[in-house]
Amino acid sequence: MAENPKSTSNDEPVTAAMVIIGNEILSGRTQDANLAYAATRLNDFGIQMAEVRVIPDVEDTIIKTVNELREKFHYVFTTGGIGPTHDDITAESIAKAFGVPIAIDPMARALLEEHYGVDNLTEARLRMARVPEGAVLIDNPLSRAPGFQIGNVLVMAGVPIVMKSMIDSVAPRLIGGKPVLSRTVTALVRESDIAVGLENVQDKYSSVEIGSYPFFRKNMVGSNLVMRGTDADVLEQVVEDLKVLIRDLGAEPLDEPPV
Amino acid sequence: MAENPKSTSNDEPVTAAMVIIGNEILSGRTQDANLAYAATRLNDFGIQMAEVRVIPDVEDTIIKTVNELREKFHYVFTTGGIGPTHDDITAESIAKAFGVPIAIDPMARALLEEHYGVDNLTEARLRMARVPEGAVLIDNPLSRAPGFQIGNVLVMAGVPIVMKSMIDSVAPRLIGGKPVLSRTVTALVRESDIAVGLENVQDKYSSVEIGSYPFFRKNMVGSNLVMRGTDADVLEQVVEDLKVLIRDLGAEPLDEPPV
Repeated sequence: MAENPKSTSNDEPVTAAMVIIGNEILSGRTQDANLAYAATRLNDFGIQMAEVRVIPDVEDTIIKTVNELREKFHYVFTTGGIGPTHDDITAESIAKAFGVPIAIDPMARALLEEHYGVDNLTEARLRMARVPEGAVLIDNPLSRAPGFQIGNVLVMAGVPIVMKSMIDSVAPRLIGGKPVLSRTVTALVRESDIAVGLENVQDKYSSVEIGSYPFFRKNMVGSNLVMRGTDADVLEQVVEDLKVLIRDLGAEPLDEPPV
Repeated sequence: MAENPKSTSNDEPVTAAMVIIGNEILSGRTQDANLAYAATRLNDFGIQMAEVRVIPDVEDTIIKTVNELREKFHYVFTTGGIGPTHDDITAESIAKAFGVPIAIDPMARALLEEHYGVDNLTEARLRMARVPEGAVLIDNPLSRAPGFQIGNVLVMAGVPIVMKSMIDSVAPRLIGGKPVLSRTVTALVRESDIAVGLENVQDKYSSVEIGSYPFFRKNMVGSNLVMRGTDADVLEQVVEDLKVLIRDLGAEPLDEPPV
């Protein structure tokens, strides 16, 4: 777990929303691969994913969604729609959401010139150097065309390997709170048999959020009990309580689901 | 492709939103596996996924999200939070969203009695028979505890195999429009080299939505060009235009990305 020197001093959680822009995710053709990585990585820096929206490449929808979410959460991350083709409308839409002009950024242009060669920097490629006025570039070590941050909105590529490199480059400079720690205890016990005891444990620990996730595998039925909180010692106490509960039900607590 | 006898007569698309309720998806611990299946299956019946939200197990958030989306889209599908444990608050929240009481449904109770045995239908299990007043049950062939539909909101389980069986059982009875057909042409051509030609093709066919998705694989750079529309003949014309465009750029169109 990386330590974040810019952590907020109080215990209020720092929250983020993610906006996945892309018809190909909505249609079911492509499985999103960005949310799980972004949520996990941001949590390392004390930023909790609080809401995610998947929306189409439609300007009005992008504008409304981003403007609503940037009021509600500390950060908004968008993925997708910053390439060179006609369906890449994210940068323009974000500029409109903020009510600022969009223009070629000299540094972004220089990065693309270096990557493609000055003579090969076509009109289409130059589109990728357009950022809203006032935006700060987000480095893309992989294919150079940068993302950008304007206000609390961070605009990233949709291609998973590029998105990952952008998140990795930008996350350390964001201001976060305490990372949420999680522990999991698994039991070959039906959720409905452990429900009452589980609620009692939850009532005892208000700072920990306990989730129960059933699984069905071959002929086994079981529950993954997931605890989330910011205090490792308290989480350990909850783990011990749950192990007692599981043994009381005649089962043995496991560290992970059986394969 | 299944034919839907209840198709709407006009060409207006029938739209759906999906609300994925669950802290474990938001935290990045679990990768959502429901969206891609639901979107694909619903499209078979002429229902287009138009927006997806991932939200936490928080009553107020569930209520506001569902109430906003059920006004905007023809259908709203929720997944998650209908099990027997304390963190399963979806049914109660949906009842509050509609302003109706929640109560044990006799048929849901009978299904659970049959599944668990009358003597084993504990208080916790009986929670899974609670549905908002006026709701219609959605069959769960797999583990019996049903989902439900109230108004245009369909409430389903979060466990992927259970969600799939619920979607399969409910989708055929929904009223849909024309399914969206899609075709893909792949080229080992950079997006930025095909961008101008692609925009020209897009301008020629207003009824077709053309998306371009770059890929980077080993040392290959290429673009997947995806066309979506409801008329197979028009899509075929677009495919032919794109093949000409790709050959003009000195490449060969492929049916799928090279491995």
